[in-house]
Amino acid sequence: MPSRVRVVGLGRAGTAIAGRLRDRGLLIDDDPELVVLCVPDEAIGEVAQRIPIGPWVAHVSGATSLASLAPHERRFSLHPLQTFTTLRGPDQLDGAWAAVTADDDDGRVTARWLAAELGLRPFDLADDRRAIYHAGASMASNFLVTLYRAAARACEAAGAPPEALVPLMQRTIENHFALTGPIARGDWATVDAHLAALHQELPDLEAMYRVLAEATRQ
Amino acid sequence: MPSRVRVVGLGRAGTAIAGRLRDRGLLIDDDPELVVLCVPDEAIGEVAQRIPIGPWVAHVSGATSLASLAPHERRFSLHPLQTFTTLRGPDQLDGAWAAVTADDDDGRVTARWLAAELGLRPFDLADDRRAIYHAGASMASNFLVTLYRAAARACEAAGAPPEALVPLMQRTIENHFALTGPIARGDWATVDAHLAALHQELPDLEAMYRVLAEATRQ
Repeated sequence: MPSRVRVVGLGRAGTAIAGRLRDRGLLIDDDPELVVLCVPDEAIGEVAQRIPIGPWVAHVSGATSLASLAPHERRFSLHPLQTFTTLRGPDQLDGAWAAVTADDDDGRVTARWLAAELGLRPFDLADDRRAIYHAGASMASNFLVTLYRAAARACEAAGAPPEALVPLMQRTIENHFALTGPIARGDWATVDAHLAALHQELPDLEAMYRVLAEATRQ
Repeated sequence: MPSRVRVVGLGRAGTAIAGRLRDRGLLIDDDPELVVLCVPDEAIGEVAQRIPIGPWVAHVSGATSLASLAPHERRFSLHPLQTFTTLRGPDQLDGAWAAVTADDDDGRVTARWLAAELGLRPFDLADDRRAIYHAGASMASNFLVTLYRAAARACEAAGAPPEALVPLMQRTIENHFALTGPIARGDWATVDAHLAALHQELPDLEAMYRVLAEATRQ
């Protein structure tokens, strides 16, 4: 396995990955056996082309095909299924899962080795299944933000502290997403009362509530 | 403050509340100074009417007005902003917030005493602000379930393990709902790729994705 890894791109994910590799004694600047591109998706192709053929070349994007790593043939991708902040260190990687995409067993073994060094739990993802996978990842993280912001606005409109929603949302996850509340009880009078209140006070949230209520009902 | 509390209704919330009151040495069956109704919303009015006038009478519903406790005038409500399971005990209450609604200071003081005994963090909620408050609470918990189920289906369609979403969602909360991902980057090509994949593979999720993406963009 590689003992000399270079990281290109020190954004939120790249900083955490480089920090972990440094802790492992694997991070170098010159003559790498593996180059991990942590650059923005749209820059991967150009950066890959500038790297001399030889080392393994990998990216950490969920949305981007392996083809973007051309002309390299020793290539793979490892997408940490996690959201990163610059306020934390490499411990952000611990316990997160990561999607491994490779052309062959050599690539998969190298990707899984990198996942283990980083503290990630790998699973295989076919290159042509990225779009639906990444749609799921984005829904889970980005739309969770949207949901909180919408619910927080409703709390604020009621004079209630929005941070009171946090233990509720954490426990909903801890309880393995068991559905409780009015829709689980078939209590449509309460659902109608929510819609009437949103219609009057936060009308821009009404469409979101309706589509999510309908999806919940199903 | 009351030293004899009776709990009526041993559903998910009632079991946790009664268990905590038993641990505190406050739970009794006869001659209560406070009766806490943990019955379904639609039963509160009827159960309240059967209780002889005298003790404090409270309910724990987020959606139900104090008026449902008629004819009792010593009344309040304390709504734990939490989702409960029968698989856990009174520790489910610890750290959760709870909405206090009362007619006067006597009621508020009694409600806040009960919150403290239960391990809940109280905040005030006006009786006529319940609908928008409860809409927010339902969105935060129930629609979080819906969001996970939708994202899990997308992962499964990609051959990825849906449980891989859990650390991502937990960290999104831990990171104070900081928005990352394609919409935060203004990467509409990726958003379009998600929509195309959903349209082809999970078309019933397309409307939800659109309305949440639009809300996220704003």
